[in-house]
Amino acid sequence: MSSENKKGKIYVVGIGPGNMEDISVRAYKVLKNVDAIAGYTTYVDLVKDEFANKEFYSSGMKREIDRCEEVLAQAKAGKNIALISSGDSGIYGMAGIMIEVAENSGIEVEIVPGITSTIAGATLVGAPLMHDQAIISLSDLLTDWEVIKKRLHCASDGDFVISLYNPKSKTRVEQIVEAREIMLKYKRPSTPIALLRHIGRENENYTLTNLDEFLNYEIDMFTMVIIGNSNTYIKNGKMITPRGYKLWYG
Amino acid sequence: MSSENKKGKIYVVGIGPGNMEDISVRAYKVLKNVDAIAGYTTYVDLVKDEFANKEFYSSGMKREIDRCEEVLAQAKAGKNIALISSGDSGIYGMAGIMIEVAENSGIEVEIVPGITSTIAGATLVGAPLMHDQAIISLSDLLTDWEVIKKRLHCASDGDFVISLYNPKSKTRVEQIVEAREIMLKYKRPSTPIALLRHIGRENENYTLTNLDEFLNYEIDMFTMVIIGNSNTYIKNGKMITPRGYKLWYG
Repeated sequence: MSSENKKGKIYVVGIGPGNMEDISVRAYKVLKNVDAIAGYTTYVDLVKDEFANKEFYSSGMKREIDRCEEVLAQAKAGKNIALISSGDSGIYGMAGIMIEVAENSGIEVEIVPGITSTIAGATLVGAPLMHDQAIISLSDLLTDWEVIKKRLHCASDGDFVISLYNPKSKTRVEQIVEAREIMLKYKRPSTPIALLRHIGRENENYTLTNLDEFLNYEIDMFTMVIIGNSNTYIKNGKMITPRGYKLWYG
Repeated sequence: MSSENKKGKIYVVGIGPGNMEDISVRAYKVLKNVDAIAGYTTYVDLVKDEFANKEFYSSGMKREIDRCEEVLAQAKAGKNIALISSGDSGIYGMAGIMIEVAENSGIEVEIVPGITSTIAGATLVGAPLMHDQAIISLSDLLTDWEVIKKRLHCASDGDFVISLYNPKSKTRVEQIVEAREIMLKYKRPSTPIALLRHIGRENENYTLTNLDEFLNYEIDMFTMVIIGNSNTYIKNGKMITPRGYKLWYG
């Protein structure tokens, strides 16, 4: 029907915490081989040096739909293009929306998994995620705060290890205070907490504390908060949630 | 005091789903550079060809303590050794127990993160993990079944996307039946479910179904079960949990 028209392909790529070591081999190869890389400005800046010969399309926060439509337009024009997220693109990332925007376009979308922040962060402090766990974002930009509160109640009541994504931003400071109050209804004040900052980046650092005291420390949008379950302990500077193997020792 | 005695180092490495593409660059380099690789036989078999010139120490299931003690002994004897888990070593893996066994030994333990099964599997079917989620293992080998049931209640009541690890084995077949009954108290029978089998391996395959019908399909110890939340949908063969971006379209 129409003249030959080479279509591009879209890759939605989780780059992991943001360094070139904790990225997957597949993600790295995809970024090496595409024509263009698109994403939130902060993420594009993380990969620009390593893949310097690419075209880049970066945009600010809250421009997700526009970004996906730009990516689709580039693919329709014949380019292979990677839309990147930090961590995994399928966890609070761009995978779902890119699939939705590309629907019925005839353009192939491949999702390339990555190491999500809490998994990368956990390794800094030991093994806090060894058992059943819940991941909750405290951002109420797209989710009703009542829904988030209910999840905090349920995850605490179920004695899950809890990872809090987006715990706090410059303008959103009250959610983490209320989250602590909810968790204290079910979890002991001494429950271990890891505050993990700038995971996988140059200025990566952490604090080990507990549910009673953790608000005394710095928490911002680059912080991951991991709250232990009733068996989690801190010893020799390591935070560990046991699987129960100790039982087999005796 | 003693004569010079070069100590080895222990790396606890999550290799991801088990292929040489979804492993992290760091994990790959560690396996290239160590003297020896240890792990559960199935996992060691996954990496043997790629790292053929290494010493290998493999052992069967339920021998985790012995395996860690062997790894520690090899490190004390001066070897750099990697203890591998599939997925991430900090999620139902070997990180916690290795840290515990090496405690006070003076041997350094580095945890290298990997892509856990549900994240790798999710990419096959779209973006089912886009929002708040819970990860629960149905294995009651080390955890009381009453605790697991409570967690199934809480995660369902909180409308989390739920990933079930170890849903069923040859001898453990009733838990998934009871899990379904619990989830049906909170989630609609039409709630989308992905059954993901042999994720990242040669014979990888999946089924998209729902909470009412999923037990009619094959589930075994190599299956990951992802149950959607109340907004999750299946369309054009993709399973997607929205983040709410649609709201911004209008």
